Amino acid sequence: MKGFKFAGIYAGIKKNGPRDLGLIFCDKPATAAALFTKNRVVAAPVILGKKTIKRGVCQAVLVNSGNANCFTGSQGLLDARATAAMVAKEFNIPEDLVMVSSTGVIGAPLPMDRFKSGVPRLKEEIGLKNKIPTGSLEDFAQAILTTDTCQKIVREKGSIETPQGPKAVSIMGIAKGSGMIRPDMATMLAYVLTDADLTATDLHQALLAANERSFNRITVDGDTSTNDTLLCLASGEGPACIRDDAGLTVFQNLLEKVCLKLGKMIVKDGEGATKVIQITVRGGKTQEDAFKAAEAIAHSNLVKTAIYGEDPNWGRITAAAGRSGAFVDPDKMDLYFEKIPLVLKGCWLGQAAEKKAAQVMKAPEINIVLDLNLGDKTDRFLFCDFSENYVKINADYRS
Amino acid sequence: MKGFKFAGIYAGIKKNGPRDLGLIFCDKPATAAALFTKNRVVAAPVILGKKTIKRGVCQAVLVNSGNANCFTGSQGLLDARATAAMVAKEFNIPEDLVMVSSTGVIGAPLPMDRFKSGVPRLKEEIGLKNKIPTGSLEDFAQAILTTDTCQKIVREKGSIETPQGPKAVSIMGIAKGSGMIRPDMATMLAYVLTDADLTATDLHQALLAANERSFNRITVDGDTSTNDTLLCLASGEGPACIRDDAGLTVFQNLLEKVCLKLGKMIVKDGEGATKVIQITVRGGKTQEDAFKAAEAIAHSNLVKTAIYGEDPNWGRITAAAGRSGAFVDPDKMDLYFEKIPLVLKGCWLGQAAEKKAAQVMKAPEINIVLDLNLGDKTDRFLFCDFSENYVKINADYRS
Repeated sequence: MKGFKFAGIYAGIKKNGPRDLGLIFCDKPATAAALFTKNRVVAAPVILGKKTIKRGVCQAVLVNSGNANCFTGSQGLLDARATAAMVAKEFNIPEDLVMVSSTGVIGAPLPMDRFKSGVPRLKEEIGLKNKIPTGSLEDFAQAILTTDTCQKIVREKGSIETPQGPKAVSIMGIAKGSGMIRPDMATMLAYVLTDADLTATDLHQALLAANERSFNRITVDGDTSTNDTLLCLASGEGPACIRDDAGLTVFQNLLEKVCLKLGKMIVKDGEGATKVIQITVRGGKTQEDAFKAAEAIAHSNLVKTAIYGEDPNWGRITAAAGRSGAFVDPDKMDLYFEKIPLVLKGCWLGQAAEKKAAQVMKAPEINIVLDLNLGDKTDRFLFCDFSENYVKINADYRS
Repeated sequence: MKGFKFAGIYAGIKKNGPRDLGLIFCDKPATAAALFTKNRVVAAPVILGKKTIKRGVCQAVLVNSGNANCFTGSQGLLDARATAAMVAKEFNIPEDLVMVSSTGVIGAPLPMDRFKSGVPRLKEEIGLKNKIPTGSLEDFAQAILTTDTCQKIVREKGSIETPQGPKAVSIMGIAKGSGMIRPDMATMLAYVLTDADLTATDLHQALLAANERSFNRITVDGDTSTNDTLLCLASGEGPACIRDDAGLTVFQNLLEKVCLKLGKMIVKDGEGATKVIQITVRGGKTQEDAFKAAEAIAHSNLVKTAIYGEDPNWGRITAAAGRSGAFVDPDKMDLYFEKIPLVLKGCWLGQAAEKKAAQVMKAPEINIVLDLNLGDKTDRFLFCDFSENYVKINADYRS
């Protein structure tokens, strides 16, 4: 996308490559908005980022994997600042236009020497001063990964009406996330870039709304990361999106689409995951009831292991709804696996229905619908199943 | 213990034995108190049991494993009543003196024919009418198990001062529970028997208090069963425990001891568990803060898998406290593995300390202490680690 440059290199922060240090550079300062983790234990780059983002403008984003710079005390905050300063100096821009993110192991001090040697190399890759850029979006997308098994890039295009006729608007997202994923803000690192032209306030509002319906509705393992950051940069090279105007709605919808797709990619790449499940709870008496029931089902280890075993274990699903705190009446519940009803008005439909549902479970993506039949509120969650590999990955993570 | 008889047989409810139907019979109607699951999806025997227990008296307890009689609609409730009626008829006692419990697969109808043939056999085992009893406590303890790998029986004795001098009081507990274990009431089946002589109200109060500090502080997998029941029967054959008297305090302490031991046995036998961990959170500003932080740590899959990997991953422990909703300040936290400090005032003590902590992790039972250093409130949870076997057990449970 015009206005943004990317780089990703191996700086030696991770034990092994291929890449662990990435940079997004904007030709001009971009309008910026960001959301951060709600975990009270927050990483140094999040503390710093919350301050930096206040002005609503950003030109460079430095991201490292392999080290979260979390639980590193006052030294960690000094280190985060120092890395921002390195980028500012190298690119000759003000320090408060640089956002930094870190992801990886908690508690280890940031290896500053790797940044010192790495940042100038990032500049070479970005290829400023009429040099041909050698860095790529894919390099950046790879540099931010930890236990992820694949890069996560999403692109969307739309059209916005302007006084000069329809004008194309582009939006693109890059994310990482595989474990420590639970909806409480963003639960991962995600960078969304657009050429749209809008104010920082409108961008922030749009990001809040999109996040609530996408990243705040996914879960891998129920643990909230200390480093979660969702950052959106708008270069303004494209069409203007003005408040109370159709243009802003177009932008909002595109933004939500990108966030939803990134969220799904994260769940699909969940540690040890073999299936992606969407649980829709409808017929809730209140919105909170629908949310609570969907959240409890998406987080239930018993539901997740049953799905891994391709077992349409409706007892565990209804039991999770029952303990969720939501108002439910077992005798009113309907439960569907895709279009196959397995429970209607609290009655199990028997072995034949269960066999059909078991067939559905063999698919890599499964829609489950629980109708509480108590009202008209709906909520949904995206989650993954739970395999032996999740345990293997997380028992050995630091060794 | 005097006043109680036991039996346990294989009635053919489970696919395979050794036992699946058990009975506790009291020589005389016993004072009774019970606590049940808080899950809104409740099994038929729980619905029935809540009514039966209201009078505070009970003479027989029928328990089956292999079928939870949950999500079985109005037929399930009729079936539960019918099984209570079978016991009442066979033993010639009023129906409302019979409590029934079921545990096992959710959703399948109760196989009534197995009960019809099984209940008379239980009577033979109990050996009433001057016959020698052939049933045993161990048979009963085995009949109530599902995925448990061992029987769970605890015995305690104490002494109560009476006008006639000190008198021995006995208390005994039998429990089952291995999966779908999460503290929200009792999360398992547990039967506590005593020869103490006390009122139903006092027994209920004592049970509430003991439960809060024992079963409500354990977790295996965070899922709350639909069938949880904790039932306490007091034969009154032993010493009187009168309110506002030291005797009731002695009884209360014994009861709590039995519940704590049973709770620990359940955690130790947690599905796939290899270690038992006690997390103590102290220095909480409020009791709720201490509770929330301890609960979040005990439920974190990342913490549980790290412990399985014998990794003193303090980052995951502090991060779980951070997302718990408790008020915490990372810069004030101390963290100990047994007596080994690994974090003091938010600072990691380095590789040497971590190596010592890693040694501690090799033990089958581990004490972890997180001091929030923000007040004087303490809470604790007992939990198990999380292995590949948990996934295996629960992916294949119904197949």
